[in-house]
Amino acid sequence: MKAVVVKPPGAGVWIKEVQDPGDPQGRVRIRTLETGICGTDREIVNGRRLTTSPPPGREELILGHEAIGVGEEGDGIFREGDLVMPVNRRPCGKCLNCKAGRPDYCETGQFVQAGANSLDGFMREYWNDEPKYLVKVPPAVREFAILAQPLADVEKSVEEILTVQRRLIWNCEDGTLSCRKALVIGTGTTGLLFALLLKTEGMEVWVSNRREPREWEAKVFQEVGLNFLNSSKGYGGESFDLIVEASGSTAAVVGEALSSLRRNGVLGLFSFPREESFSLDHRGVQTFVMRANAIVGLVNGQKPHFQRAMVHLSAWNSIWPNAVRSMITKVVSVRDEGEVIRVLREKVRGEIKVKIDWT
Amino acid sequence: MKAVVVKPPGAGVWIKEVQDPGDPQGRVRIRTLETGICGTDREIVNGRRLTTSPPPGREELILGHEAIGVGEEGDGIFREGDLVMPVNRRPCGKCLNCKAGRPDYCETGQFVQAGANSLDGFMREYWNDEPKYLVKVPPAVREFAILAQPLADVEKSVEEILTVQRRLIWNCEDGTLSCRKALVIGTGTTGLLFALLLKTEGMEVWVSNRREPREWEAKVFQEVGLNFLNSSKGYGGESFDLIVEASGSTAAVVGEALSSLRRNGVLGLFSFPREESFSLDHRGVQTFVMRANAIVGLVNGQKPHFQRAMVHLSAWNSIWPNAVRSMITKVVSVRDEGEVIRVLREKVRGEIKVKIDWT
Amino acid sequence: MKAVVVKPPGAGVWIKEVQDPGDPQGRVRIRTLETGICGTDREIVNGRRLTTSPPPGREELILGHEAIGVGEEGDGIFREGDLVMPVNRRPCGKCLNCKAGRPDYCETGQFVQAGANSLDGFMREYWNDEPKYLVKVPPAVREFAILAQPLADVEKSVEEILTVQRRLIWNCEDGTLSCRKALVIGTGTTGLLFALLLKTEGMEVWVSNRREPREWEAKVFQEVGLNFLNSSKGYGGESFDLIVEASGSTAAVVGEALSSLRRNGVLGLFSFPREESFSLDHRGVQTFVMRANAIVGLVNGQKPHFQRAMVHLSAWNSIWPNAVRSMITKVVSVRDEGEVIRVLREKVRGEIKVKIDWT
Amino acid sequence: MKAVVVKPPGAGVWIKEVQDPGDPQGRVRIRTLETGICGTDREIVNGRRLTTSPPPGREELILGHEAIGVGEEGDGIFREGDLVMPVNRRPCGKCLNCKAGRPDYCETGQFVQAGANSLDGFMREYWNDEPKYLVKVPPAVREFAILAQPLADVEKSVEEILTVQRRLIWNCEDGTLSCRKALVIGTGTTGLLFALLLKTEGMEVWVSNRREPREWEAKVFQEVGLNFLNSSKGYGGESFDLIVEASGSTAAVVGEALSSLRRNGVLGLFSFPREESFSLDHRGVQTFVMRANAIVGLVNGQKPHFQRAMVHLSAWNSIWPNAVRSMITKVVSVRDEGEVIRVLREKVRGEIKVKIDWT
Repeated sequence: MKAVVVKPPGAGVWIKEVQDPGDPQGRVRIRTLETGICGTDREIVNGRRLTTSPPPGREELILGHEAIGVGEEGDGIFREGDLVMPVNRRPCGKCLNCKAGRPDYCETGQFVQAGANSLDGFMREYWNDEPKYLVKVPPAVREFAILAQPLADVEKSVEEILTVQRRLIWNCEDGTLSCRKALVIGTGTTGLLFALLLKTEGMEVWVSNRREPREWEAKVFQEVGLNFLNSSKGYGGESFDLIVEASGSTAAVVGEALSSLRRNGVLGLFSFPREESFSLDHRGVQTFVMRANAIVGLVNGQKPHFQRAMVHLSAWNSIWPNAVRSMITKVVSVRDEGEVIRVLREKVRGEIKVKIDWT
Repeated sequence: MKAVVVKPPGAGVWIKEVQDPGDPQGRVRIRTLETGICGTDREIVNGRRLTTSPPPGREELILGHEAIGVGEEGDGIFREGDLVMPVNRRPCGKCLNCKAGRPDYCETGQFVQAGANSLDGFMREYWNDEPKYLVKVPPAVREFAILAQPLADVEKSVEEILTVQRRLIWNCEDGTLSCRKALVIGTGTTGLLFALLLKTEGMEVWVSNRREPREWEAKVFQEVGLNFLNSSKGYGGESFDLIVEASGSTAAVVGEALSSLRRNGVLGLFSFPREESFSLDHRGVQTFVMRANAIVGLVNGQKPHFQRAMVHLSAWNSIWPNAVRSMITKVVSVRDEGEVIRVLREKVRGEIKVKIDWT
Repeated sequence: MKAVVVKPPGAGVWIKEVQDPGDPQGRVRIRTLETGICGTDREIVNGRRLTTSPPPGREELILGHEAIGVGEEGDGIFREGDLVMPVNRRPCGKCLNCKAGRPDYCETGQFVQAGANSLDGFMREYWNDEPKYLVKVPPAVREFAILAQPLADVEKSVEEILTVQRRLIWNCEDGTLSCRKALVIGTGTTGLLFALLLKTEGMEVWVSNRREPREWEAKVFQEVGLNFLNSSKGYGGESFDLIVEASGSTAAVVGEALSSLRRNGVLGLFSFPREESFSLDHRGVQTFVMRANAIVGLVNGQKPHFQRAMVHLSAWNSIWPNAVRSMITKVVSVRDEGEVIRVLREKVRGEIKVKIDWT
Repeated sequence: MKAVVVKPPGAGVWIKEVQDPGDPQGRVRIRTLETGICGTDREIVNGRRLTTSPPPGREELILGHEAIGVGEEGDGIFREGDLVMPVNRRPCGKCLNCKAGRPDYCETGQFVQAGANSLDGFMREYWNDEPKYLVKVPPAVREFAILAQPLADVEKSVEEILTVQRRLIWNCEDGTLSCRKALVIGTGTTGLLFALLLKTEGMEVWVSNRREPREWEAKVFQEVGLNFLNSSKGYGGESFDLIVEASGSTAAVVGEALSSLRRNGVLGLFSFPREESFSLDHRGVQTFVMRANAIVGLVNGQKPHFQRAMVHLSAWNSIWPNAVRSMITKVVSVRDEGEVIRVLREKVRGEIKVKIDWT
């Protein structure tokens, strides 16, 4: 069968024939319907993600960690024909958090990640999997359900931030989070998903970019009720209870964000900055302490977060139908191999989420 | 303007002209679009809810605690034309939980409740309100959004149960609640809403009634993936991690439920039984202790729960569209006064939710 | 070596020679210094605890689950000569709570309990154990450290109650629990330990019994600052935010307690009632729901609770030295076999904690 | 009456006569027994704490935020003769956290602080206070009870860290924190108190300084079971689940600490660095995110933490009597005014806690 293959940690990507997984042997056989492409895939393809590794004893790795498939055969909680999405990070089997189904907090670092670390990904025609790593996809949101993979990371992040804030009374006088002002830095896939989720949680939400919003972005901000901040000239004196770094631009952004945190405010770091440093002098550290601020590193959503992602996509389908549909900016057929290779190599201007269609 | 009026604690209900609330005076003026009827309304109308009281200094009370309206005038976070739903229980202003927007945990008992205790309800053409007691209704779910009021109570209940279970690791080995088996006793409005919400939370959900399901119920159970248990001959040896009493039948149900709780299991009491007692002998108490069981009384959702209810109704609109629509079993025009009085007086066979249309 | 042996589920108790555990084989060899006697031991001895079982393949069980020993040999975190106390309930090895060191919330029911269920107890001259089941005993509190075993159960119970109450803001306006009024029913070992711990947590604490306090009890109440309630004529209109049943008398007490719970109040069931039933009519259930009350079954402290118990005994040694010492009402030498058998068979009037001295 | 007075934000300190507070008028009149001196007092005296302010309308401020007094007159929960310690930070009266008795999380910044911000301190012969700001001091620990003020800050910090870590399963396989390795940077008052408390919480605890331990320190480390790390040449490859910065030296320490955090590890910032900056390049930020690390600013203990501090001092009095006594390194009589001024102006080499005796 056809698959998208890389040879980590080297650069390069190939579409080639690989062995069909065959009989699921107690697992579920899944036919791939579509796969999504994200920044991590391109880092792997371009040889810039040095921690990437093939499965033990092999040199090639099948790429892809965002997928929707259809169950074709095998036991489990799914019925044939059910749409499913696989969870990409899998437990180490040793530490307590992994035993509890939470390899996002793996303590050994020996977890594996489909399409990235020691486990083949989903850019292939078929794969076999265990039901416990599969999440049901509601047919009604099929069109943009691929967003559930990055959204799962965002769901986990917001859950973690809310847990951290249990250190104080963070709810407002009306019992909701309406008095809390959040800033999401970056308007890419995760930036937008953070904005939608924080809005859903009842906060006043701002998104920022170093440029004016594009026309379709402006429409989304209007539909959802988001405030936009052009941060090319700073934050204009605005301060926030929560800031999420989702731009993946420079480490310097961290410093800017810290100085805009209100008392008891949290900075969530989600994206990997690509360059630069940030520095904080002793007065900055003092302010951080006096304001009871916190910084949290946010990684990886797990099965409960995939489930919640499906619920939220289903809700947004009703209330912000344009926003979720706008985020699928391109679909490429797997038969158009040249185009597949091209979208895997580099980001198209204005792109949010690109999907490969395997049907 | 027209209003539905009762004279608590006596029986009786009248449709009559009352004074228009007029200028909102810093509040929001809302035009009523529709109001829902629930069991509590009928208890008030039939003089069986002895704790009902009119506003101070008056003898009449305007009925109604489930409503959707449209903002017509006034300041606040809402724009003219926004659909809104009011929160029915309002704080005592004295205790810490009320100051934190959570009169569901009022400590003084001096909270007020629209249409029930010391505060006029929403069965009238207009009312004025403070934005902090109003929740936005997504237009896409307008058709069944009245369910958000009872659903808010259910949302609060599930939140509370999950908090109580933080005493142990209640998540399963896949990080979700997939290994937890829940039983909802009763298939009325709240019973069904509990079932939908617990299913959304990822549990295996059973619903029970003392009869076979009606045809439309069977369809809903099928669509949502609920298991049905005819409890007229007991629970057939099934045991549960969570049981919610939402039948409002007899206190004896509590005893049956307790004996079907698994280790660490919780019984949530939501409905008011109308008769009988339950009793537990010393061996039953021993079992309860040895199994680390818990019983929790579940009352009243607040603003955060109304917001979450809107999100879930929006999601169910996508994934279980038939289930939510099936629950609106009748709409009566306020102009048909005889019929309004009739539906306020007694339940129709097969009824789930009846709405009065005020437009 | 000498051991105290029973033949469950039959009645009877024998002091006899059993095989020395010998070489600890990677575990720790511990010489028993003293063992405590509690109500459960007497139920076993008198054949009234039907769930008691010997280790697999045997007919006899070594009794005893409260012990202090001294490490004599073997690896681990302990140094030779360290005083240690063993944790009595051990994990099933299968469920997630047991894997996380919390067999108090075992889901399979396949945990074992030293001196009670499938595992030999500590009423013998030596035993071998794994360091992970041993807790260090501070020499300064050696005199009454045996209380740490029942206190561990109490620590776990209070932790659980505080977790359950996280459903609301339970802290008072000064940030402490000073506005919370607790009633402990029963003035035996666990009753007194509950009272001391709840007082330490900052609550207003009442203890009750169906008689006037004995002279030494009155002194303890005075030293600790506890209020006494003679409940032979009811609770005199007092109401409470927390009630703990620690009398082990009758199930009827549960009903009395429920009717004295304030809004949001919790009833913790700790002891096993020996007789009678309690019943609650539909009005009682309604009140329970409207008041958002909760009932929780409280069982078994684990290693973190034993550790905390040692800290609290060390604190009480400084602040309430008389109270903790008063609770050791009798010490019997293991050489006085007739007396050992006698105290194992029946409770002495006025007894709190009886120890057997193995040195 | 005599008082120690400063004129913020200028440098200087005076012992002078001020007006006696007189009739407590519904509050409690307290006679000062002793006051402690900490680094903040010296920063005020030396004009280096620029945020210091006198009470409204005045130019002078009475210094002192660590005190033990004896109730002499007035209503409240205390009896005449009770030893009490005042809570130093007082609520703004406006925000929800302050209303809940938690001005450590004040949102307005309008809280006041005795002896530091807009409220007179306790370095005077008498003061009047409200019972809700007073904590009982157990006579048994009177000798070193002044440590309860800095310990309250430490108690709050550890509580906050444990709350933040609820984002994952942080307990170990034996249910305790025994697998968690903590490093406390700094061996001053707060550093030592952190070490004692984290040890009490069951962790493996390391303390570090840039020099070898002094002889008395070595004895304390031995008594408590602490590991020492001379960090003048780095951390020697050790890594930690928790690091607390309590040295108040340079901001550069923050960078060193971050690079020694394990997966899911937390860095707690308690002290104010006096100089330098720290910087983190984009790779450092990536590592922080991938390891799911967190940084938390730790400020100010409140009444529940003072109460817990008294409990822990009482426990340590039994188990580590030498450690707590070693920390009181000097007592100066208030009558020796020259010496009082001297100890307020500068730190003595080897000093931990210096007290002024007001009797």
